[in-house]
Amino acid sequence: MKLASLKDGRDGRLVVVSDDLAWYAPADAIAPTLQAALDDWERCEPHLRALAETLEHGGVPRERFHEHEAASPLPRAYQWADGSAYVNHVALVRQARGAEMPESFWTDPLMYQGGSDGFLGPRDAIPLSDPSWGLDLEAEVAVITGDVPQGASPEAALAAVRLVMLCNDVSLRNLIPGEIAKGFGFFQAKPASAFSPVAVTPDSLQGWRAGKLHGSLEVELNGEPLGRADAGVDMTFDFGQLVAHAARTRSLAAGSIIGSGTVSNRGPDGGPGQPVAAGGVGYSCLAELRTVETLADGQARTPFLKAGDVVRIEMRDGRRHTIFGAIEQQVEAT
Amino acid sequence: MKLASLKDGRDGRLVVVSDDLAWYAPADAIAPTLQAALDDWERCEPHLRALAETLEHGGVPRERFHEHEAASPLPRAYQWADGSAYVNHVALVRQARGAEMPESFWTDPLMYQGGSDGFLGPRDAIPLSDPSWGLDLEAEVAVITGDVPQGASPEAALAAVRLVMLCNDVSLRNLIPGEIAKGFGFFQAKPASAFSPVAVTPDSLQGWRAGKLHGSLEVELNGEPLGRADAGVDMTFDFGQLVAHAARTRSLAAGSIIGSGTVSNRGPDGGPGQPVAAGGVGYSCLAELRTVETLADGQARTPFLKAGDVVRIEMRDGRRHTIFGAIEQQVEAT
Repeated sequence: MKLASLKDGRDGRLVVVSDDLAWYAPADAIAPTLQAALDDWERCEPHLRALAETLEHGGVPRERFHEHEAASPLPRAYQWADGSAYVNHVALVRQARGAEMPESFWTDPLMYQGGSDGFLGPRDAIPLSDPSWGLDLEAEVAVITGDVPQGASPEAALAAVRLVMLCNDVSLRNLIPGEIAKGFGFFQAKPASAFSPVAVTPDSLQGWRAGKLHGSLEVELNGEPLGRADAGVDMTFDFGQLVAHAARTRSLAAGSIIGSGTVSNRGPDGGPGQPVAAGGVGYSCLAELRTVETLADGQARTPFLKAGDVVRIEMRDGRRHTIFGAIEQQVEAT
Repeated sequence: MKLASLKDGRDGRLVVVSDDLAWYAPADAIAPTLQAALDDWERCEPHLRALAETLEHGGVPRERFHEHEAASPLPRAYQWADGSAYVNHVALVRQARGAEMPESFWTDPLMYQGGSDGFLGPRDAIPLSDPSWGLDLEAEVAVITGDVPQGASPEAALAAVRLVMLCNDVSLRNLIPGEIAKGFGFFQAKPASAFSPVAVTPDSLQGWRAGKLHGSLEVELNGEPLGRADAGVDMTFDFGQLVAHAARTRSLAAGSIIGSGTVSNRGPDGGPGQPVAAGGVGYSCLAELRTVETLADGQARTPFLKAGDVVRIEMRDGRRHTIFGAIEQQVEAT
């Protein structure tokens, strides 16, 4: 089942989307918003699934689904917590700035609490008021959970995953070192993120296995391929582990979004991977590319994002059909 | 005007409360929940104020208001960001663990993104599943904002403050050093917070001046006074500055909660204050008391909270009448 929120007020309007993303059927008779559906999932889910089934067979009034009319599936949420599950990425970035990475990072997930009061839509511009902040994209996978009790096991946490989507976790790289030094975590360095036009239940995802989404995460910058890393590879912590980590000392309410962190694959030799142009799987953010450049040449060549740049994040199935629709955002000076 | 959310479902039921907290009138004909009222404040505020005025004069059907029937004013929120505006407190805690405090902490606010998907009610038990986590209270002042545009000045940010309340920012002290070392900020160390039964508009607060709430924040542990610090004293950053800090790189949506951090006053000699029993204003959290003990005797004597302990946080007006109602929570082993 695929769900989306058409832009409408602060929370959007819930629709069920056909598997090929061509059609939608309004679902607001079942629940006005995705958050409302998640709040009352046991009642809503069977109705939504029945509607999706009928939509697939053309047995219900339907409208053309246009990705640019979609907000993020949860236009605002009560929780957004982002892990850093591709520890390879963390090790690389630390290596480039000469900082040691504690061994515990391989066993104890990193996770930060993100702002969730308003997300960008998947086709919304990324506002940038100061280019010196070092604007970057981060292509990720994210899940939306149901209610998760405090202390849930990774297995129970995984069973609470309701929906899967893609994310552009917008980051202001040059504000990060200062915030890490302050010790209170990221805040100003993490403006609003964007999510894919469509969120998908795990059972509808061929690539969903053991809490990981297998498949190439296609990342483009200005029409050129930047990354093709497989989101199911080199993921040190699966979503069951990430959600359980988030729920270790407190329960999570329905509609909590938990992110994977920037997707990143090692190269065949275990070191940093090659750029796509050189036959590698490339990178899911500019920071990692800049890190590889720094390790190779002593300095980064690729600049951070500037006004006019366009980033695109998408994943396709075995027949090259889009699964979640595309996040496609242009940077806009404000 | 005073507003509260009676316990009812995930978001409570909005009511207007009389100034003396004796009565309430249902406000759900104006907006079903406080979040809904904040989402549409320009339309709702005059109606809510008219209802409050009528309630004060007994001209509307009214019911007895019982603080224990109230949820936190926003039982869940789209954002909870907590500052650390009483820099005195930060300096003290650092001093006790032999860590230097950067000079910039006096000019650049500390702020962390907290979890907001579910708050404890003001009379709810504080669940504790592992006493070794080092459970502590933190008595604070917090504001709820309207929409704040990115880059808002401190003056504009202050004008966007809709409501003021008290907070118990529950903390797990022994998890904090590990999370600070990881660099991603607090997460597991900050389980659900609780807020006062009633939220109050700034114009109804005699002690609200220049973005600070002046008045003694009464903190009790097991019926004994722990703190009487004045929330308007030694607050390095006012709420206009805190909200502007939060909005530096991104807009804040209506219903964002911004906290002051643990209220803390210096002693008359500029150093750490004395306990209440010794004639001082005491402390708004156990960590500060333990810090003072460590500085004086080389080790902390007061243990963190254990099952059965009761914490109480309240502020009274010049006639000793409660302003926000009391946060009163018992620690419960789970």
